[in-house]
Amino acid sequence: MEDLSTRLAQIGRGFYSRGWALGTSGNFSAVAAREPLRLSITASGVDKGALTEADILEIDSSGRVTIGQGRPSDEAKLHLAIVRARSAGAVLHTHSVWSTLLSDAHAAWGGIEISGYEMLKGLAGVRTHEHSEYLPIIENSQDMDALAATAESALARHPAAHGFLIRSHGLYTWGRDLDEARRHVEIFEFLLEVVGRSSSLTGGREDGNRQNSR
Amino acid sequence: MEDLSTRLAQIGRGFYSRGWALGTSGNFSAVAAREPLRLSITASGVDKGALTEADILEIDSSGRVTIGQGRPSDEAKLHLAIVRARSAGAVLHTHSVWSTLLSDAHAAWGGIEISGYEMLKGLAGVRTHEHSEYLPIIENSQDMDALAATAESALARHPAAHGFLIRSHGLYTWGRDLDEARRHVEIFEFLLEVVGRSSSLTGGREDGNRQNSR
Amino acid sequence: MEDLSTRLAQIGRGFYSRGWALGTSGNFSAVAAREPLRLSITASGVDKGALTEADILEIDSSGRVTIGQGRPSDEAKLHLAIVRARSAGAVLHTHSVWSTLLSDAHAAWGGIEISGYEMLKGLAGVRTHEHSEYLPIIENSQDMDALAATAESALARHPAAHGFLIRSHGLYTWGRDLDEARRHVEIFEFLLEVVGRSSSLTGGREDGNRQNSR
Amino acid sequence: MEDLSTRLAQIGRGFYSRGWALGTSGNFSAVAAREPLRLSITASGVDKGALTEADILEIDSSGRVTIGQGRPSDEAKLHLAIVRARSAGAVLHTHSVWSTLLSDAHAAWGGIEISGYEMLKGLAGVRTHEHSEYLPIIENSQDMDALAATAESALARHPAAHGFLIRSHGLYTWGRDLDEARRHVEIFEFLLEVVGRSSSLTGGREDGNRQNSR
Repeated sequence: MEDLSTRLAQIGRGFYSRGWALGTSGNFSAVAAREPLRLSITASGVDKGALTEADILEIDSSGRVTIGQGRPSDEAKLHLAIVRARSAGAVLHTHSVWSTLLSDAHAAWGGIEISGYEMLKGLAGVRTHEHSEYLPIIENSQDMDALAATAESALARHPAAHGFLIRSHGLYTWGRDLDEARRHVEIFEFLLEVVGRSSSLTGGREDGNRQNSR
Repeated sequence: MEDLSTRLAQIGRGFYSRGWALGTSGNFSAVAAREPLRLSITASGVDKGALTEADILEIDSSGRVTIGQGRPSDEAKLHLAIVRARSAGAVLHTHSVWSTLLSDAHAAWGGIEISGYEMLKGLAGVRTHEHSEYLPIIENSQDMDALAATAESALARHPAAHGFLIRSHGLYTWGRDLDEARRHVEIFEFLLEVVGRSSSLTGGREDGNRQNSR
Repeated sequence: MEDLSTRLAQIGRGFYSRGWALGTSGNFSAVAAREPLRLSITASGVDKGALTEADILEIDSSGRVTIGQGRPSDEAKLHLAIVRARSAGAVLHTHSVWSTLLSDAHAAWGGIEISGYEMLKGLAGVRTHEHSEYLPIIENSQDMDALAATAESALARHPAAHGFLIRSHGLYTWGRDLDEARRHVEIFEFLLEVVGRSSSLTGGREDGNRQNSR
Repeated sequence: MEDLSTRLAQIGRGFYSRGWALGTSGNFSAVAAREPLRLSITASGVDKGALTEADILEIDSSGRVTIGQGRPSDEAKLHLAIVRARSAGAVLHTHSVWSTLLSDAHAAWGGIEISGYEMLKGLAGVRTHEHSEYLPIIENSQDMDALAATAESALARHPAAHGFLIRSHGLYTWGRDLDEARRHVEIFEFLLEVVGRSSSLTGGREDGNRQNSR
């Protein structure tokens, strides 16, 4: 079984190669221990294309570094908030072109509803394409306490959501472990591209609906 | 000659790298023996980017595992149905953005007609770009028996079809062997992107036709 | 200095990875000797992603195989015609989404005019972005003698052209050697994507012009 | 610590793989010494996909080669101008589809304003997504002295700009070192794609504004 740090670095490099973590954007974490909580998380400002185990720190529930050199990701508070709210085993945050575009285009409706796609079946607990998945969109902020509070509020209002978007920022998703979280990233990034492209395709759905259903 | 399992894993990883099998989607099979039928097929829920020979199981004509550990792909019944209906040597199922988009956009017409492209010549038995290829689109279902029956019906109605789409789901294609099936996937994924993009290109064809001809 | 076969295989695999030679499409050649002419060319129907030196044959000016096992590319006559017409040292033919789309969209005008792009400077003999490059578009045919004749006619009518498109088929370009030919493929594939996308971009050029100038 | 030549070659190959330096386009430099200035820069006309340390020359402030064989990049004067104007430690120039498209579409307004994106925070000195970044667009020219003067003028008029576009040509950006410059390339290429795609997305911003704000 691979070390969490090895796995996080590998996943991060994979996201970078797909263009989902360019320019040192993105941050990735996984729970190393509970009671007390220890979270392995990418250090701040590192090139995700060159991520190694040395770039993964460990922090406690206050965000203090317990293992490693460097400053943890600026968004560590968000990761900790999601771990608490969802009892997540891993939290992944990507910055893709399509998540950024859709987070803007649908911000006025507060979220994006996606249903009917077989791809939704890869989300934890989803057994049919007739599932309706709602991705809340929250406003961005540089005040990490405020952003974490906004995220917690959205997570509480949408207990079934497997992820959320931060407007003009990107996607946050999680899972019981890194494999599940990573699968969720791939599914959401895929669906966001499908939804994004479908509005400009001849015969595609009506514009402006908050629904992107099939 | 490479082992079928090695080849299936390699093809799967290749599709994953192109974004055609993200989030554990997609499933790939090849006939290992006939009389009785033995089908090598990807196990359920595996990350196609990390496919290895260990992830390939062998099943019999009832779908029971004869070699390997794990649960075969949920869509094993579809693979078996196609092997029977077309005497196929391999069946490949991908989930790409363009196949998903087009399967929705053209669902109302029941299929997509593609003709005039030189790329069609790579489909088995096709010798000219003036070929007219019809890709039936069938409705998705979580009832695998129903889905297999729908697929068999479509295959019977369109004996010349080299593939079909499942709405909001993806592409199924096959070949006499893995090389041919893989070539078919590449050709269809390419043509679906061309057809998809052509409707939004200035000077492109009329919108809404069931025909995508050249 | 690398063997021509090694170089051709490497270039082919590179085009395949970019999606410009999927489904065994595309064919690549380089002059091995003159007087008499010996042309190294890809064998017919090979997977360009797995191209090796063993897949490169050598043919004479009649298209007969002088070295190697297998059938030379179906389009060998086109390669030979271009070598003769342009005294080319290498001829490369790719099948990309954008070359296919644009060859259709601009077919009615007989060609695509591209000017003003700095990228044009990489074409042999072009020293300024204020260059006007005309890419003729010829009709496809399965009669290789007819197609070669059509190509020769277009090459004679457009002596300055560095390439041409075959409608619904793809791009042909050449160079004094493989490096130059490969550079030309990259430049044309890049420019065709720019031209293709610009017509749907807000503030982009007028639709329907045969000119795609800057 | 890696040699500048090794790092430049690696960065160049990375840009090539993303399609930002096709057909020998693009040029990359880093300051090797100051007082007197020594700039490591890519040689002219090399395939960026095969860049090695041997393709990196060293020039002085007049552009004369001090180390290495070959002709320095044609755009060396631009690199030197930027190094002087911004006290840059590295200058990177890419030719991407989106930078080319946007440099044309927004040329009439003299630049592109981008604000509101979290991705902007990766630009040196930018601490919030509420930053407004202006990317000047200058006219292209084959007269390198004239082009350098135009660039210097734009840099003087826009002291906060982290990059600029040359119309129908590409992006220039820089940084205090190669890591920062490379981060800037990734950020700008990402944002240019977002801005480019947003105008054709349903619910996207108004067409024709010089502002691309969030």
